[in-house]
Amino acid sequence: MRVINFNPGPASLPLPALERARDELLDFQGSGMSVMEHSHRSLEYMAVHEATLSLMARLLEVPPTHQILFMAGSASHQFAQVPMNFLPSGASADYLMTGVWSEKAFDEAKYYGAPRMAASMVGPDKRYTRIPRQDELRLDPKAAYVHLTSNNTIFGTQWHDFPEVGSVPLVADMSSDFLWRKFDVRPFRFIYAGAQKNLGPSGVTVVIADKDYLASGRKDIPKIFRYSTHAENNSLYNTPPSFAVYLVRNVLEWIDSVGGLPRLEQWNREKAALLYGAVDRHPDFYRAPVERESRSVMNAVFQLPTEALEAAFVADAKQQGMVGLKGHRTAGGIRVSMYNAVSVENVRTLVAFMDHFVKTRG
Amino acid sequence: MRVINFNPGPASLPLPALERARDELLDFQGSGMSVMEHSHRSLEYMAVHEATLSLMARLLEVPPTHQILFMAGSASHQFAQVPMNFLPSGASADYLMTGVWSEKAFDEAKYYGAPRMAASMVGPDKRYTRIPRQDELRLDPKAAYVHLTSNNTIFGTQWHDFPEVGSVPLVADMSSDFLWRKFDVRPFRFIYAGAQKNLGPSGVTVVIADKDYLASGRKDIPKIFRYSTHAENNSLYNTPPSFAVYLVRNVLEWIDSVGGLPRLEQWNREKAALLYGAVDRHPDFYRAPVERESRSVMNAVFQLPTEALEAAFVADAKQQGMVGLKGHRTAGGIRVSMYNAVSVENVRTLVAFMDHFVKTRG
Repeated sequence: MRVINFNPGPASLPLPALERARDELLDFQGSGMSVMEHSHRSLEYMAVHEATLSLMARLLEVPPTHQILFMAGSASHQFAQVPMNFLPSGASADYLMTGVWSEKAFDEAKYYGAPRMAASMVGPDKRYTRIPRQDELRLDPKAAYVHLTSNNTIFGTQWHDFPEVGSVPLVADMSSDFLWRKFDVRPFRFIYAGAQKNLGPSGVTVVIADKDYLASGRKDIPKIFRYSTHAENNSLYNTPPSFAVYLVRNVLEWIDSVGGLPRLEQWNREKAALLYGAVDRHPDFYRAPVERESRSVMNAVFQLPTEALEAAFVADAKQQGMVGLKGHRTAGGIRVSMYNAVSVENVRTLVAFMDHFVKTRG
Repeated sequence: MRVINFNPGPASLPLPALERARDELLDFQGSGMSVMEHSHRSLEYMAVHEATLSLMARLLEVPPTHQILFMAGSASHQFAQVPMNFLPSGASADYLMTGVWSEKAFDEAKYYGAPRMAASMVGPDKRYTRIPRQDELRLDPKAAYVHLTSNNTIFGTQWHDFPEVGSVPLVADMSSDFLWRKFDVRPFRFIYAGAQKNLGPSGVTVVIADKDYLASGRKDIPKIFRYSTHAENNSLYNTPPSFAVYLVRNVLEWIDSVGGLPRLEQWNREKAALLYGAVDRHPDFYRAPVERESRSVMNAVFQLPTEALEAAFVADAKQQGMVGLKGHRTAGGIRVSMYNAVSVENVRTLVAFMDHFVKTRG
């Protein structure tokens, strides 16, 4: 029996994507072996690799100016690899600080250049409760790039409209809300997203970047760390995490089969409306610290009156087949991660539970 | 129907390891979700993580001086990360050049320090046909470390006895023959091995290293690239490639179930004896360029009298359910990769085919 999985990442994956992986795990398309036993240069794997690239390009309408890459590892690697490639020694880059992951990206950039906080939303208690407004950004027109984190998994804030940054390259970590909807790729010179939220298992990170920008990266760094190496070799310079790419392909095909990104956006907005609706119906019981305009459609966070009630909430939900609701250890409270594979029906079930919980425990 | 898979990597995996993955792909141990949908901090994944570490430690008798790490990506990342951590700017490190992968490791080290070839077995045609003897090594006692590649996947040579390097730290890339047998870990300060040969799918690389050596790495590099970060956090600093680690666990349990590394060594020696026996029975037809003492038990390479015969060999073998026999594009000829998951019976089948092929086509 499958549970309702609100894990923050690694997270729930669409059942059809997993079923397909299971069904062909020992024999991929009659080839007599698993896709993970195929050479990454075989026709069989190459077809998967290309299908993943072309599906993502089609779903997002990635413009011909941009290229999609598969990088091994997680977004944490990109925190360092982005400045390694694009931040010349001594140069400055503007970081928009909206959470713990922005902080980590900022800290890694210090080893290469001089990152600068062009906005910081951190509160006195080290919590983040909103996204900066355009007029709060103190942008340096000479910055090497502007870096933002599109969704704050831990504190539950999200950029709903991306900022204007002029001619400075815009770099975004979209790990936790990539593909929640269709968006315009063109304003971004570089996007990266660890797969383990909306996209697949951990171990692969998708990059979508302007081709000229990729080519402009430093050449005095090891080949394996240059984005240009992976761009020139279609992400096959070294052995890619092929099974992870294959699962991303399965997830993308599921997205396509249910109606593409417009349909996911509709579902994700409906889920968020349901969830925040329940929170707002009981504002004295479920306290949402995030300002309304900054609320994340992916990760909703709230507190209950006491930690004991929060523990009971998590335990009771688990008894009813809903897991992954405990807040991040640095934030406490409850966190509901509603990535693409979580259905509207799943959220309805949780919302019914929330209403009932207030009645019986409130 | 499963084929006989002689792929050089990604390569054949033990059927029981794959069957287990298939059987629990939608519901891991009654948890109602796949292991890849579990948080990497969940009790369920942590148990897998710890089981993988302890099984490997037991199978190899890893001494308490050493620690096992799981790194994202492939050995190609370690080519750069090893010198980034352990080669101070301007300092020298000794590289023992025995193939294409040694060359790649050497090239990446140039971005950090001054790697030096302490032995090079490259032939005038850029081919490698043997491992250096101890008296051929021109070791620098002041080198930061000595780096070797234990097995040469492309040209089919292998270190059967590891060199004496005095007090200089010995670093080994064991990607393509790790766990082919038990070996003494103690002389090595740092071992790394991409999983996709003997160990699991691509996307994870195992490191076994001296704890003090790990701690001694540079601290002025990004946290994600410091081995000390991963050592201090038990390979859970960032999200690990959890499904790849899980599959490594399944492979290790299979190794344990069949009798551990002594049994694998026996099988691997038997496979190599069978294969090279067939080659040596027909020395005018199957020409093995590698000197006998340097022959790899993992990857056997040989040429046939003409390229047309080589193509026919590959095609006829495929018709009989044996795939992955084409040599690497830089080496040509035939390559038979006999990693742990390839059985003695599989090699017997190939050898019977080889004998027959000589009779009918020789």
